[in-house]
Amino acid sequence: MRLALEGVPTQVEGVEVHRIEKLGGLFEAMRAGGVTQVVFAGGLARPPLDPTQFDSTMMQVAPRLMGALQGGDDALLRAVIEMFEDQGIVVVGAHEVLLDLVAEAGHLAGPEPSAQDLRDAERAFDILSALSPVDVGQGCAVAGGLCLGIETLQGTDATLRFVGETPEALRRGAKGVYVKAAKRGQDLRVDMPAVGPATIDAVAAAGLAGLVIEAGRVMVLERAETLAKAEALGVFLSVRDA
Amino acid sequence: MRLALEGVPTQVEGVEVHRIEKLGGLFEAMRAGGVTQVVFAGGLARPPLDPTQFDSTMMQVAPRLMGALQGGDDALLRAVIEMFEDQGIVVVGAHEVLLDLVAEAGHLAGPEPSAQDLRDAERAFDILSALSPVDVGQGCAVAGGLCLGIETLQGTDATLRFVGETPEALRRGAKGVYVKAAKRGQDLRVDMPAVGPATIDAVAAAGLAGLVIEAGRVMVLERAETLAKAEALGVFLSVRDA
Repeated sequence: MRLALEGVPTQVEGVEVHRIEKLGGLFEAMRAGGVTQVVFAGGLARPPLDPTQFDSTMMQVAPRLMGALQGGDDALLRAVIEMFEDQGIVVVGAHEVLLDLVAEAGHLAGPEPSAQDLRDAERAFDILSALSPVDVGQGCAVAGGLCLGIETLQGTDATLRFVGETPEALRRGAKGVYVKAAKRGQDLRVDMPAVGPATIDAVAAAGLAGLVIEAGRVMVLERAETLAKAEALGVFLSVRDA
Repeated sequence: MRLALEGVPTQVEGVEVHRIEKLGGLFEAMRAGGVTQVVFAGGLARPPLDPTQFDSTMMQVAPRLMGALQGGDDALLRAVIEMFEDQGIVVVGAHEVLLDLVAEAGHLAGPEPSAQDLRDAERAFDILSALSPVDVGQGCAVAGGLCLGIETLQGTDATLRFVGETPEALRRGAKGVYVKAAKRGQDLRVDMPAVGPATIDAVAAAGLAGLVIEAGRVMVLERAETLAKAEALGVFLSVRDA
């Protein structure tokens, strides 16, 4: 059985596409196919919904979903998880199925971080920890102790472009590092932070020395290619506990 | 008596220019002129220093100054204040001399903020408060509850340019606000946050609804022009307690 949600790009052929407005149909098809667990992966833009097309299941969940759409991403995703679980379908994190999606503490690729790089990473983790209670910040750039960027809604690539535009005079000679970490209390079953080959490209383009990710709570996508890219571009990729 | 520090642009004519390397000479000239208080205003880039030119006073303070140069801006400015105070010269905040440099809580110019704008400002203040302990962030943009930018070393203009590049789809319809506040525990005698006509330009260019500043702790430079610009561009300028 191959089901897809309209608006989510898929490379699988022969899928049965369901619209969010007809959520009841999707749940029915899942139950008919014996689906008891679901893994969320990839992105889904907040879709425009047509209420005149709602089926009865969607009518029932709509008020809660609409309310959550006004809140932050975390609130919305929590509502979506509850919606599946109310149907008896368990939401499982991708990292719980593919155990090596996340990494253990250690040095993964590229040159060894310098003592300054390690201090910069420490400071970036401190900044992200401070932001966790206000549900902001999955990434932070620090060079020579100075904060050069905090990842906001626009995402890692936009933040790293901003960091890369920092005038040389402000950098104090240090190249700097980018740190990716999950927020405290974040539900890792959805919206887990991830890095991949494109992240390494962006870190290198921003002129940083390397990337440090949180152990066990950040996915490394296309790991072989990501590590090879770090080696090729001469930026390090390290994993540490927050 | 008109003294100037090399590297600080001045529009005053007939000034006696002193180099930082010859700090003893500057202090002597100040004492000779009966100077007992000093106000810091404007910016000074971290200057390149030539140690072979140090006078005896500079030799004495250099170790502390060099150490502080490795730290954050706050550490450096604290060292500079102590250096003046060791010479018996009291450092006074510009807002202590020109009492109307800062503003009291209230609406200063432009349209009234909407209820959403006020909620966004509230959230931006919360984010800045969370960051205060790690000595980061004098500004923050929030639109529809979502954080679109946190001001780092690059300053207000660069941050607002970044905010302005946010794709429309991420903004959720809300225009958003920019909040400027001083960090908790920040020594307001130096490096007090400031807004002026250029800040209003940048806020408008970023597509935000307005600017909210912290009462009593953020300077409004060229106030008449700043207020006139807010009216002309249709962005609000409000002042509130953090």
